[in-house]
Amino acid sequence: SCLTMGRAMGLVGGLLGLVVIPAVLVSTSLRHGAPRTEAEPEPSGWELAADAVPEDSLWPLPQWVRTYPRQLQLAPSRFQLVHGAGSSAGPGCGLLQDAFRRYYEYMFGHSRRRMWSRRPLAARAEPELFQLQVVIEAGDPGCDRHPHLTSSEAYHLTVTEPVAILKASEVWGALRGLETFSQLVHEDDYGSFLVNESEINDFPRFAHRGVLLDTSRHYLPLKSILTNLDAMAFNKFNVLHWHIVDDQSFPYQSIYFPELSDKGAYSSNLIYTPTDVRLVIEYARLRGIRVIPEFDTPGHTQSWGKGQKDLLTPCYNGGQPTGSFGPVNPVWNTTYDFMTKFFKEISGVFPDEFIHLGGDEVDFTCWKSNPEVKEFMKKQGFGIDYAKLESYYVQNILDIVSSYNKGQMVWQEVFDHKAQLKPDTVVQVWMANNYTPELSRVTGAGFTAVLSAPWYLDYISYGQDWKKYYSVEPLNFPGSEEQKKLLIGGEACLWGEFVDATNLTPRLWPRASAVGERLWSSSNVTNLQDAYKRLTNHRCRML
Amino acid sequence: SCLTMGRAMGLVGGLLGLVVIPAVLVSTSLRHGAPRTEAEPEPSGWELAADAVPEDSLWPLPQWVRTYPRQLQLAPSRFQLVHGAGSSAGPGCGLLQDAFRRYYEYMFGHSRRRMWSRRPLAARAEPELFQLQVVIEAGDPGCDRHPHLTSSEAYHLTVTEPVAILKASEVWGALRGLETFSQLVHEDDYGSFLVNESEINDFPRFAHRGVLLDTSRHYLPLKSILTNLDAMAFNKFNVLHWHIVDDQSFPYQSIYFPELSDKGAYSSNLIYTPTDVRLVIEYARLRGIRVIPEFDTPGHTQSWGKGQKDLLTPCYNGGQPTGSFGPVNPVWNTTYDFMTKFFKEISGVFPDEFIHLGGDEVDFTCWKSNPEVKEFMKKQGFGIDYAKLESYYVQNILDIVSSYNKGQMVWQEVFDHKAQLKPDTVVQVWMANNYTPELSRVTGAGFTAVLSAPWYLDYISYGQDWKKYYSVEPLNFPGSEEQKKLLIGGEACLWGEFVDATNLTPRLWPRASAVGERLWSSSNVTNLQDAYKRLTNHRCRML
Repeated sequence: SCLTMGRAMGLVGGLLGLVVIPAVLVSTSLRHGAPRTEAEPEPSGWELAADAVPEDSLWPLPQWVRTYPRQLQLAPSRFQLVHGAGSSAGPGCGLLQDAFRRYYEYMFGHSRRRMWSRRPLAARAEPELFQLQVVIEAGDPGCDRHPHLTSSEAYHLTVTEPVAILKASEVWGALRGLETFSQLVHEDDYGSFLVNESEINDFPRFAHRGVLLDTSRHYLPLKSILTNLDAMAFNKFNVLHWHIVDDQSFPYQSIYFPELSDKGAYSSNLIYTPTDVRLVIEYARLRGIRVIPEFDTPGHTQSWGKGQKDLLTPCYNGGQPTGSFGPVNPVWNTTYDFMTKFFKEISGVFPDEFIHLGGDEVDFTCWKSNPEVKEFMKKQGFGIDYAKLESYYVQNILDIVSSYNKGQMVWQEVFDHKAQLKPDTVVQVWMANNYTPELSRVTGAGFTAVLSAPWYLDYISYGQDWKKYYSVEPLNFPGSEEQKKLLIGGEACLWGEFVDATNLTPRLWPRASAVGERLWSSSNVTNLQDAYKRLTNHRCRML
Repeated sequence: SCLTMGRAMGLVGGLLGLVVIPAVLVSTSLRHGAPRTEAEPEPSGWELAADAVPEDSLWPLPQWVRTYPRQLQLAPSRFQLVHGAGSSAGPGCGLLQDAFRRYYEYMFGHSRRRMWSRRPLAARAEPELFQLQVVIEAGDPGCDRHPHLTSSEAYHLTVTEPVAILKASEVWGALRGLETFSQLVHEDDYGSFLVNESEINDFPRFAHRGVLLDTSRHYLPLKSILTNLDAMAFNKFNVLHWHIVDDQSFPYQSIYFPELSDKGAYSSNLIYTPTDVRLVIEYARLRGIRVIPEFDTPGHTQSWGKGQKDLLTPCYNGGQPTGSFGPVNPVWNTTYDFMTKFFKEISGVFPDEFIHLGGDEVDFTCWKSNPEVKEFMKKQGFGIDYAKLESYYVQNILDIVSSYNKGQMVWQEVFDHKAQLKPDTVVQVWMANNYTPELSRVTGAGFTAVLSAPWYLDYISYGQDWKKYYSVEPLNFPGSEEQKKLLIGGEACLWGEFVDATNLTPRLWPRASAVGERLWSSSNVTNLQDAYKRLTNHRCRML
């Protein structure tokens, strides 16, 4: 009924049964990332999609889809998600077992109250689909591992009578294929579950497809974060960029430095305990999502100063300390002692190979006022170029984190200010103004890049701004083929100044879905009308 | 804890106990609409308010407030809301009984789990407040009536040991005073309920304080409408402008013309039955809120045409009907026969003295194409001035509705196009461009006006746009004192193109609260920092 709850003028068709896919409308259709071209009136809002065909519900659109008119029926009481013959994974693979249970629930759970187990299938002539068999082909399926940048998310799905087969090299691909299979299954007017015979070959266009959540400007309850991870999985996102602390609060409960959250969180119960953090990481892992924590320094650190004395730079005025503090103090050894210990903890707590070290928007005013900092500048021969001091600090932090065998992500300023970066550093391009030359520069210097600049979803505006996000072509920057390969993905960022648990979900979804498809699907999937239709159905399914 | 979940930089103070109002901070303070002037850093988002004093939680700010440092304690197990001596209302007044139960629940319901009834008050030294006695002074308290434009919402509240007294001429004022009393009661760190001794004299600045909801662009479930009525009561709004039908759908189930919703609604279950409509009206009445339905004609009526043949104008192209339809056909007698019967029903179903007849954005293109319409224009001597045809139509509708003893509201175009309006017609000014001269013209012609132009809350933007809504001074238009009196209020409009049950509440509230205070409180209540602090607390209370 979500589908019928809003509709734009000009769309015609019956008012009921719009989720039905009448067989007469379905012809063998082949998609290789090629959008259909029929013209149709442009609706507004999340409205009704008419003339449904099986692909009308897929989001993000797979790389290669063939659907057939023949429909198979699924009996919830009999249908099974199982490990297929030859799979390296079996009932001991908790990750897949959990996914089987979850996707069964998504497909059939909402209609359990109708007691379908008592209803015979006799009324329909369709043949029955009895199983989805999942086959993991790699020797090590990866059930107990964490997903990483080079994990395979490719899968191949065939739906034919009497069983559907989902093949994937690793469990991560199986998770993506399960999502796709669940999107193919639909309910007709009479409550029957149907799926068209089909074949899908799919893999992501970009390896890094992230959503940034900010838990410092407003605290987000664990439940909000988990709900968001579910939504991310529905859209095949694979990175939660957890901007966990910032000036406003320090909700991360550190094991070595508990005072950071004791004094820097909004309150003693608005924190993420080690147990909470483990839960987020595991919930994400089960959905094939990496958790990259960001501990942004040397700026954006006011909250750190509350629980850690002698960490921030004392600001001066007229030769006297003002009592205010600036960025992390880059001249004291104690700073690096603290950071060495702190990032040792972080490296252990967060299993991802990458840690985001921030490095954005460093305000030099306080550094410039501090006599000790000025003295240090002189000694180092930095002149009055405080970007050099910033780079000095950042390089120390990079070295510390490297020593723990962690890769690094940084905001673009770290690159702009010419810090000596490790070759595998990922530079996140966020400044909206002229981001394409920046992509050229970063990749031209041989660094991998992640694009966020056009996807700051906290900047809301009236109307269908998803089209703006959708219409971005990430590789549309000047550069060689080699440079293009260095752009490994993007992130939809929802900064938290005006976001908390009361508005997170309706503000982020389905707007972030536009970014999800851009980062997963083929570059030629750009038709807005087609996307509109699929996204409308996808939104209703997510609801 | 809502209060501590987000906080701006620069605000200092303890992290716990921020809802406490320490007696030491409270001095006898008098407000007569005069905002405090202390400077404080401008926070962003809905953040923390420190240094609380009793008025810091009042929204909208009453006309006259005096608070004393002395605090009284309330024991939920003993505290009673009761009819006071000399009240014309008693236990037979269902409206007040319902309000007593509701406000008791708001004040104490959330902490019932703590089993306070078993806890002695002994720990505190404060004297106890045992009752709030409500006294209705008019001979007829109005318990079974509907609120109307000239209802009295004034009240006088004194909180002193051992009982508080709330006096109001009619029950509508008592409802407003109950809301204010509930806002004065607060919980301290230890779970004790406290209220400062105080005296409040209050009345609304404007008589018409509305929220427009649009249930045609997207269907809103009954629950969303009722939740919104609760929020309206928290903000002392008194008019629900129910834009119930439009081009996109006709969810109103008519008794005389059931085909209108059978064919014009999104689906047969996405409608408002007569029972639903009665429920909305009664739920609103119990909160002192009028329900003014809008049946917008002759434009915005595409959905009407589906269930009522020969109502809309057939459009022509090259001498042939195109199959499309335009606005309501103003030249056929059958149109007026239909409208006579239809508005007879509406006049009976909706008890309010006013019906909103729409009249906005009439597109003349189809009328211009229709030979019968052109013939009619000639016969009437309208030349090519289709605004005259529009006025001809609207006047017929106005006459029909007048015959049922209903007052009329119309959008500004009806006035602009020079229809002959009844003297008591309310003209709603909505065009954002140059609305002050329009207010001058409307009131200069002797009509009452309602202002919506600066308060289209569906137009979202980044950041604290509530300040923009708050900073509007409705009477800031050129005109005499008499003209100013003709501006009877305003409405916050949330059009439904991009609004449904998933985002209605976080999109409308607390942004509409800014309009609520502007329409209730004294004109000199304009301090943004003060408003910010109170609105932050008010938001948390609403949550």
